[in-house]
Amino acid sequence: MKFVTFEKKDGTIRAGWLLNQDHVVDMYELSEGMLPSNLIDFLENSDAHLEIVASLSPFTKGQKGVYPLSELRLKAPLPVPRSFRDFYAFEQHVKTARENRGLEMIPEWYEIPVFYFSNHLAITGPGEEIIKPVNCNWLDYELEIACIIGKEGRNISADEAEEYIFGYCILNDWSARDLQRKEMKVGLGPAKGKDFSTSIGPWIVTKDELERFKLGKGFNLSMKARVNGVLLSEGNMKDLYYSFTEMIERASAGVTLYPGEMIGSGTVGTGCILELGEKVHRWLMPDDQVELEIDHLGVLKNEIIAEER
Amino acid sequence: MKFVTFEKKDGTIRAGWLLNQDHVVDMYELSEGMLPSNLIDFLENSDAHLEIVASLSPFTKGQKGVYPLSELRLKAPLPVPRSFRDFYAFEQHVKTARENRGLEMIPEWYEIPVFYFSNHLAITGPGEEIIKPVNCNWLDYELEIACIIGKEGRNISADEAEEYIFGYCILNDWSARDLQRKEMKVGLGPAKGKDFSTSIGPWIVTKDELERFKLGKGFNLSMKARVNGVLLSEGNMKDLYYSFTEMIERASAGVTLYPGEMIGSGTVGTGCILELGEKVHRWLMPDDQVELEIDHLGVLKNEIIAEER
Repeated sequence: MKFVTFEKKDGTIRAGWLLNQDHVVDMYELSEGMLPSNLIDFLENSDAHLEIVASLSPFTKGQKGVYPLSELRLKAPLPVPRSFRDFYAFEQHVKTARENRGLEMIPEWYEIPVFYFSNHLAITGPGEEIIKPVNCNWLDYELEIACIIGKEGRNISADEAEEYIFGYCILNDWSARDLQRKEMKVGLGPAKGKDFSTSIGPWIVTKDELERFKLGKGFNLSMKARVNGVLLSEGNMKDLYYSFTEMIERASAGVTLYPGEMIGSGTVGTGCILELGEKVHRWLMPDDQVELEIDHLGVLKNEIIAEER
Repeated sequence: MKFVTFEKKDGTIRAGWLLNQDHVVDMYELSEGMLPSNLIDFLENSDAHLEIVASLSPFTKGQKGVYPLSELRLKAPLPVPRSFRDFYAFEQHVKTARENRGLEMIPEWYEIPVFYFSNHLAITGPGEEIIKPVNCNWLDYELEIACIIGKEGRNISADEAEEYIFGYCILNDWSARDLQRKEMKVGLGPAKGKDFSTSIGPWIVTKDELERFKLGKGFNLSMKARVNGVLLSEGNMKDLYYSFTEMIERASAGVTLYPGEMIGSGTVGTGCILELGEKVHRWLMPDDQVELEIDHLGVLKNEIIAEER
């Protein structure tokens, strides 16, 4: 299933799933209130809610609560994840970004999957405009895949982590490289360099739909980024050095993970301008259109705008 | 006012404030539902809610909804802050911690207040037990003060930031130094080194009560930490290099700050074992009792326990 959050013509925000390419189910309306109106409440009890979905199916486009996609505006599928940990799990990205600065690879990177927390309150969705931070002249995108937690757990081993995953979506971890470079000298990692917008969407694909693509530490899914229609980045999710189950083991060590928390993979190899270099493409500017595409996860498109002063 | 969250004998969790040293107001019960039952909803509309409080006062200990403190168990005053940014705003802490590792001071530290995001879903309160992470042998406390945001804003200047502050509380940013040291080599800052527990409390003191202590970039409030009754740390909040208004300016640059977000000051000088050195005190162990005390903000006491396997 492909879960979405959307705005109706009357301004109501609801959650549901794609019935087919052109139709969307409002799960609250269709279930007459048996299913919640938003995805975070759905995830809170996802097994029971998925059983209700199964008991109500099959669905048809003539049913009450089914809308043509063209009449709706998609929002971020999970408008406010409960938290956002972003990992650094693709080797090529880490290696190349360091080589570009004349630095060797870090031995510790091969020992533990490492992440930082970012702002889960600054999530944007498909089609939403991204405001370039005023003092940023080196604006970048980052092509990532995210995993959404569907079940509460603590000290989850990689072996059992699969059952804690609800699904996956495309993630663009917008980055203000100049702000990031300066603050990271102080040693606390990236913060304001990322603390303005993170885009996810267009939908969250449940894990069962990706099962058949399993390969390596991930799935055999091509990942692409285009800026103003020009293909800049091309990678594959199978090249993860750490699997999402290993990331969940790390994230949940000594702490409770809750449904609706979000885990990012880190940037795939070639997946940002920092890694490609400015010879390949200048930093992003207002009016630039950035499209991220991952096989079976859709296309996430956003446009950069300037901040009104 | 001193805002608290507490558990009643029947297990109900409610929020309110201290009427006096020995009595607590359940704000929902006393206001017959005009005020919310939890602090996050109170903060969502804090100006209007504070007006309701004023219209209902004065209060007496004989009123319905007033409980003896001895019958209640205090929880973290804000059990789930909307987010948690922890700054690094005391110069002495940064300087000494670096000197101990033979490192010079970072010029960028003097140019911008820097922070990292930490886990706002892992908050513990006064009297709660702190589980030592299984693989951590270097467990430390950090003596900090936190500021709670009471009003939504974006691109807030330091000059106007005062009105966005609701109040302050003691914060203990528990740190697994061995995990932190290893992960920080990868360059993304501290994450699992902090991602198990952060304690706040016992109450949030509204900013008006501290006004008369203004000094330097903060307040003239003595800050102390004791481990098993022995005084280890002693500093003063007035020694902040960056004020909370400057931290709010940084935090809100290009992003919306919401009521209920929490900002930590970073550790005061001498405020952790890492800075004092193991000659002064060994790392924390199960059964250790750690008390943080800040003038007019109370005492925050916690005990370390081992994780059950």
